[in-house]
Amino acid sequence: MAKRRDRPKVVDHTGKAWDGRFREKTHRLVETYTRSVMVDCRLYAEDIAGSIAHCKTLAKAKILTATETRRIIRGLGTVKRELDRGQFPFTAQDEDIHMAIERRLTEIIGPLGGKLHTGRSRNDQVALDIRLYLRNQIEKLHAELVNLQRVLVAQAAENRTVMMPGYTHLQRAQPVLFAHHLLAYVEMLERDKGRLRDARGRLNVMPLGSGALAGTNYPINRRYTAELLDFPAVTANSMDAVSDRDFMIEVASALSIVMMHLSRLSEELILWASQEFHFVDLPDAFCTGSSMMPQKKNPDIPELVRGKTGRVYGHLLNLLTLLKALPLTYNRDLQEDKPALFDALDTVASSLEVMTELMRHVRVNRETLARALQGGGLLATELADYLVMKGVPFREAHGITGRIVRAALDQGREVTDLSLEELQRFSHRIAQDLFPRLTTVAAIDHKGQVGGTARTRVEQRIKELEKHLS
Amino acid sequence: MAKRRDRPKVVDHTGKAWDGRFREKTHRLVETYTRSVMVDCRLYAEDIAGSIAHCKTLAKAKILTATETRRIIRGLGTVKRELDRGQFPFTAQDEDIHMAIERRLTEIIGPLGGKLHTGRSRNDQVALDIRLYLRNQIEKLHAELVNLQRVLVAQAAENRTVMMPGYTHLQRAQPVLFAHHLLAYVEMLERDKGRLRDARGRLNVMPLGSGALAGTNYPINRRYTAELLDFPAVTANSMDAVSDRDFMIEVASALSIVMMHLSRLSEELILWASQEFHFVDLPDAFCTGSSMMPQKKNPDIPELVRGKTGRVYGHLLNLLTLLKALPLTYNRDLQEDKPALFDALDTVASSLEVMTELMRHVRVNRETLARALQGGGLLATELADYLVMKGVPFREAHGITGRIVRAALDQGREVTDLSLEELQRFSHRIAQDLFPRLTTVAAIDHKGQVGGTARTRVEQRIKELEKHLS
Amino acid sequence: MAKRRDRPKVVDHTGKAWDGRFREKTHRLVETYTRSVMVDCRLYAEDIAGSIAHCKTLAKAKILTATETRRIIRGLGTVKRELDRGQFPFTAQDEDIHMAIERRLTEIIGPLGGKLHTGRSRNDQVALDIRLYLRNQIEKLHAELVNLQRVLVAQAAENRTVMMPGYTHLQRAQPVLFAHHLLAYVEMLERDKGRLRDARGRLNVMPLGSGALAGTNYPINRRYTAELLDFPAVTANSMDAVSDRDFMIEVASALSIVMMHLSRLSEELILWASQEFHFVDLPDAFCTGSSMMPQKKNPDIPELVRGKTGRVYGHLLNLLTLLKALPLTYNRDLQEDKPALFDALDTVASSLEVMTELMRHVRVNRETLARALQGGGLLATELADYLVMKGVPFREAHGITGRIVRAALDQGREVTDLSLEELQRFSHRIAQDLFPRLTTVAAIDHKGQVGGTARTRVEQRIKELEKHLS
Amino acid sequence: MAKRRDRPKVVDHTGKAWDGRFREKTHRLVETYTRSVMVDCRLYAEDIAGSIAHCKTLAKAKILTATETRRIIRGLGTVKRELDRGQFPFTAQDEDIHMAIERRLTEIIGPLGGKLHTGRSRNDQVALDIRLYLRNQIEKLHAELVNLQRVLVAQAAENRTVMMPGYTHLQRAQPVLFAHHLLAYVEMLERDKGRLRDARGRLNVMPLGSGALAGTNYPINRRYTAELLDFPAVTANSMDAVSDRDFMIEVASALSIVMMHLSRLSEELILWASQEFHFVDLPDAFCTGSSMMPQKKNPDIPELVRGKTGRVYGHLLNLLTLLKALPLTYNRDLQEDKPALFDALDTVASSLEVMTELMRHVRVNRETLARALQGGGLLATELADYLVMKGVPFREAHGITGRIVRAALDQGREVTDLSLEELQRFSHRIAQDLFPRLTTVAAIDHKGQVGGTARTRVEQRIKELEKHLS
Repeated sequence: MAKRRDRPKVVDHTGKAWDGRFREKTHRLVETYTRSVMVDCRLYAEDIAGSIAHCKTLAKAKILTATETRRIIRGLGTVKRELDRGQFPFTAQDEDIHMAIERRLTEIIGPLGGKLHTGRSRNDQVALDIRLYLRNQIEKLHAELVNLQRVLVAQAAENRTVMMPGYTHLQRAQPVLFAHHLLAYVEMLERDKGRLRDARGRLNVMPLGSGALAGTNYPINRRYTAELLDFPAVTANSMDAVSDRDFMIEVASALSIVMMHLSRLSEELILWASQEFHFVDLPDAFCTGSSMMPQKKNPDIPELVRGKTGRVYGHLLNLLTLLKALPLTYNRDLQEDKPALFDALDTVASSLEVMTELMRHVRVNRETLARALQGGGLLATELADYLVMKGVPFREAHGITGRIVRAALDQGREVTDLSLEELQRFSHRIAQDLFPRLTTVAAIDHKGQVGGTARTRVEQRIKELEKHLS
Repeated sequence: MAKRRDRPKVVDHTGKAWDGRFREKTHRLVETYTRSVMVDCRLYAEDIAGSIAHCKTLAKAKILTATETRRIIRGLGTVKRELDRGQFPFTAQDEDIHMAIERRLTEIIGPLGGKLHTGRSRNDQVALDIRLYLRNQIEKLHAELVNLQRVLVAQAAENRTVMMPGYTHLQRAQPVLFAHHLLAYVEMLERDKGRLRDARGRLNVMPLGSGALAGTNYPINRRYTAELLDFPAVTANSMDAVSDRDFMIEVASALSIVMMHLSRLSEELILWASQEFHFVDLPDAFCTGSSMMPQKKNPDIPELVRGKTGRVYGHLLNLLTLLKALPLTYNRDLQEDKPALFDALDTVASSLEVMTELMRHVRVNRETLARALQGGGLLATELADYLVMKGVPFREAHGITGRIVRAALDQGREVTDLSLEELQRFSHRIAQDLFPRLTTVAAIDHKGQVGGTARTRVEQRIKELEKHLS
Repeated sequence: MAKRRDRPKVVDHTGKAWDGRFREKTHRLVETYTRSVMVDCRLYAEDIAGSIAHCKTLAKAKILTATETRRIIRGLGTVKRELDRGQFPFTAQDEDIHMAIERRLTEIIGPLGGKLHTGRSRNDQVALDIRLYLRNQIEKLHAELVNLQRVLVAQAAENRTVMMPGYTHLQRAQPVLFAHHLLAYVEMLERDKGRLRDARGRLNVMPLGSGALAGTNYPINRRYTAELLDFPAVTANSMDAVSDRDFMIEVASALSIVMMHLSRLSEELILWASQEFHFVDLPDAFCTGSSMMPQKKNPDIPELVRGKTGRVYGHLLNLLTLLKALPLTYNRDLQEDKPALFDALDTVASSLEVMTELMRHVRVNRETLARALQGGGLLATELADYLVMKGVPFREAHGITGRIVRAALDQGREVTDLSLEELQRFSHRIAQDLFPRLTTVAAIDHKGQVGGTARTRVEQRIKELEKHLS
Repeated sequence: MAKRRDRPKVVDHTGKAWDGRFREKTHRLVETYTRSVMVDCRLYAEDIAGSIAHCKTLAKAKILTATETRRIIRGLGTVKRELDRGQFPFTAQDEDIHMAIERRLTEIIGPLGGKLHTGRSRNDQVALDIRLYLRNQIEKLHAELVNLQRVLVAQAAENRTVMMPGYTHLQRAQPVLFAHHLLAYVEMLERDKGRLRDARGRLNVMPLGSGALAGTNYPINRRYTAELLDFPAVTANSMDAVSDRDFMIEVASALSIVMMHLSRLSEELILWASQEFHFVDLPDAFCTGSSMMPQKKNPDIPELVRGKTGRVYGHLLNLLTLLKALPLTYNRDLQEDKPALFDALDTVASSLEVMTELMRHVRVNRETLARALQGGGLLATELADYLVMKGVPFREAHGITGRIVRAALDQGREVTDLSLEELQRFSHRIAQDLFPRLTTVAAIDHKGQVGGTARTRVEQRIKELEKHLS
């Protein structure tokens, strides 16, 4: 295994697409430093699809003959198969995947290959490839988001009667349904899908025909290319089209929010899997042990997901920094857009995948949750609201309840353990009908408005989501 | 003027909304450190609007009587007027604007004020206020984006015949219309509007009724509140509703992209205003001089706009970091969301405003632009495309053109200065009909496909945009 | 109270230091957008100190007479007193504090004030002021770091015998001293001091005399100015000196790491204050309650400290973005350096201050900690190490211990509850001498190497630190 | 070539170091998601060096016999050779390089290999490896920084008499030496070296013996290990030692500032290589052409360097985000520290290397620079300073000069073209002795204080730097 990242060592300096004008050979360090084929090779399928559409557009404009078109498309098919099978013969001269494919095409079909780039620049070609790629990636991510949502809804359904303390400030606050807690994440992921869908809509515009920056001299029909590649529209300004990377930032931002959501879920799983909370058991298959402490069972997966959050944030900031104050139009800086974006996509995809499997197998400790509901004054709000219902203004009711809680604490007792007589010392409005209100079940089921944690509400939301996600 | 930022010095520790349970007075440092009223005071109008809607909802649910409702709403009106006029008597106990308003309301209408918070928590109240505020801010930003677009389109129209070199890699590449260059920014701003509109749609959901985290015990109709405040929907999960700050990140991300666009425009203005380019003159009213070098005329505005880009990026990172790994539901960390968001909004709003005025007054140096079009081989692509049209495969045409360019360079001549005979030494396909193609105007007008820089295309796009923006 | 941030509204456009060359009055929006006096006014003391030193340097070079020098210095003293007392008459024309002070000086001492700026530019003047300011701020931060360290060491000393579970992956791992845990933070803060000290050393270089960018025409002695202001060296390149903001980024980075440390401590306090851990009680004076849930006692301070971490990170990113790709020398973008830096300094200073007070009053729940040490297999490592001591290779010992832990878990028992006979089923090397090793105290005291958690080691470290910090 | 990043596909779930306690096999996705050997394999040399030192320390403490020690060290030597030669037989079970090496050692020398990990945890082992690695990397970076400095000084020396306009706000301001401009970057790089040196000092502390978190049970001498590995000190707190990643952030921050400096130099090269400035010619060997526009010669290297700035910034923010609010001690999140750090190191190293070669071959266009010095009022400051010397207060002199500049501009003339008579209309103090002052050479040579651009000063600084860097 090499100590350094694998980079091409030997370079033959001839045969560049642009070497007509140049005297000196490219410096060896420059070859290495500027080469991107290790990164952009993942665009090969999109590049070939784009080339085929471009080729057909040239044919329709009579720039290529039918025969030429057929031969080029057949040649591109061969190249694609080589790449699919990992048998593509990369050479040290291949600076990027676009040049590599054209070089190979020309090897296969002869000088005719040199006609493919007619009316096209690498600038609009790259813009097209990334858009095609992102369109696909967003669809995959959408499916992965749905998968995680389904698993969360299934866990919610399976644990629909399980109650737990809801937290604010990591302090027990009020009882909620475990299912309600899980469904909060389903809502977050729903917004994530929306953000990705909107980003997809905005990037789903066809840039080919923008040329290097000014448009194309050839009488091609850009809308026809768009149609072939299933784009609903074409870009409206060639200079913008070749310098625009907004969509990458927008996607990276949406991905950052996905990771933020996963980091919150991860944090909770880590807390819940601790000996102190012990609300859930993570399956052995998702944990690792310690090389030194044999008793350990570590929540590695949520820890790593949480840890990878910064990675995606970092990529977003990379892209923002990259684009800052870049004059129009294309600048070579833009080559740096892909490593960040690709790693962000990979990180989110694999994190979603592994979290889906983890959440599928999480086991809830119902007894611990039940125990956690005892004490802690979780029903104090119910008491305050009871007083309000009896006509006490809210702020006063809040104050009375506070004093009751403190008195109970001082005696090491629970609010629910106080007798009616004791309670009435704080307010004469308290009567026997308070007690049925001061139970966890009552507290939960009284939160019956839309979005509340009442069992009927949560049940209804589960049903809606099951339908929506199927 | 104080050396430190203005912070409250004297604090009376009584009268907190939540002090029933507590023994010790709040520590002086804690008061200072946790106070947010200096920041969230800008939410007062939204807070009062939200309170009025909440009050009406309580009335509809018979939790408040008609008289109580009237008195509370009238009292809130008084408070609003005090705030509008800058006459609101803030006190050292006002930790945030929400408590300040309720405190003042109670001073004005008596203990009845304590009923306003019935069925509401600061958690859902704050969530509502920010959404209302952002809705308005996005509308204002939208208008400011349109203003800048209009000015750019007007400048494009005024300079519709002006030609200039288009750049890639900050090297002159091909001739384009100055108008085409400006319209590239109009397209960027169009996407910015789309992103903000989508963000607005996603945040336009009513959170009140989520309580502290679990929902509300009171039989209120959340959809009625939503209707009163012109929200098309209500939040579907109370725990999510009080911990969700996605929309702030989404807005901060959209704002970052706006600033990125402005930073690109700024960079170009700075370049264009340099003695070396001298493509534009910035009006004196938008420049400042030097305290030491009297001859200087500095492009301060685009420099500052470019400089403020990092400010908005920083706020975005702040929000992402803030939310990372926060367990549900509300945590006090979230108080830190507002300074970042508000400053991002202010920065973008003022930057758009000042750029709009600057762009309105920029003067184009047509002669310099015309001079910049001479030489530099800007028409080499035309030559290559000419060869292609004559049947030379593109790659070969590219190579031939490269050799012609090098030969001309070696002789210190322009490609356009070579004679037919000289040119034919490189390719016998070159004929007399090349020369009419080798002019700036022809180069521009041949880029006639959608999105190209041809005069007719740009004219058409100007018309479309004028209509779209009116 | 105004809805927008306080910005000057009315501007009289005359009297700029640089208006000799200009025809048009400055645009109102431009005045507002470029004004920085609200931010840089905090540099006034440094600005005046720098001006006095500059004045003396001019005197020594015979550029000012003794009388002029005396009058200017006396005038600057008056200006300083006005600013100290908050009685300085700011006007709408004061774009920054430097011009405001010179303007006021001239009002007080007449046209002679106009001589102060001889041989100086705002570029080197600002560079000087910030360096002077940062030097002071770093000293204050250093003192605040020491304060927090002292409180942590005092808490460690007070709880020197308290044992607790040490965690990895938020899973109980091995017993440690509570004091050892606290001292880990003292080490972190020690490094923070080192980073700030190094940054201070690197910025402690005198830039005055660099002029606008090229140096100064006047025969001043820069080393004399340096001496007067207690700088050990002068900058070696004028172009670098006016464009260098490295030191701000370096400080912002050191501050980010301080906040990161505080965020880790905060996270632990929040966990420890939860009902589930209940390792500490935070004093009421540092907590706030809930507006809705009367029983709540929220760890607001550590939450806010944690939340403010992103704020400082954001400022660091802002500064990095600001400086990216700025050509030499001074650019107006640099005006944006101060809001970020100042807020980062304020945030860290106030966070250190409040954490110091909080840590001073935290109360440790010794019983809960003791209870947390029971069970959980915290002594498994001791068992493995025992086996190694008996000659079993580590990996094998680790495996045997793992099987013992699993067997105990399966029976719902602790490893320490197994009988010798039961244990010997897993390894015949286990003998009676195992049991004295399998206690928390023994586990702790066996970690006796430097840096280990043994009581003697920790005691020694406390002593060292007490001495070091006194 | 695979479409996805190369990740292990097939996993046999047995044989983990920690599987004693576990029932279920590790999930396939978990294997993939948690595996780090592809990244941390670059630590192999450091890991083996650390293991040898650990082994000797165990020997000294009589935990290993002399024979065992010899055999382990010999075995490690074999493993090292396999890795050096790229012949190490990695298996799908190798989750990280540490386990892979131990696994292989055991294959080679038998069960004795299992003794190597005695008294060590992966937590302190990893902490050691990264510190060793960074120590080496910093030394390499230091050498690369020196190389770039040397080339810059050599270019300065070669062009020691070349004059150019110095810029503020990208406006020509005052004449400076080209050498002075280049040396500004040498000063920046000098500070970069200082920051890296300080970071190295702070991380140069030996963590082994900290165990998993609590220290070690074995009577080893940590200072002896430190000595063997050339560390001047050992870590003082085991819990801090295994959770500390400060040094990575500090290095990433220093690297970010290096990239910021390179981005500024790159920006200037891009400007200078434009047709508008044309101050330098970049050699063909460092440029690439266009696939479509044959005449283009693009400054790809500085563009890519500038573009990679965001990459390093992003890694810094990744690390800061990673560490935020992590409770003590080790958490699996920390595994994510290495990809960011390693890529930051690689990016800076390769960027320095390529910039050094580029700067070595840049050719200065002396004629263009000379032409750029004509006009533009670059000598206005000289005129103002002349007036001051004649007794006019600076502010007044500045005003007079401003009026002269404007008058000249209005007539389309240069200040230097005005006659004495014309000048005297603005101030009677102007006399014949002004004219020798109003030349570029005089303007430069008058800036004779330390740090100024006078030829003697710059010459002296070149000499100092040549000596310092040799």
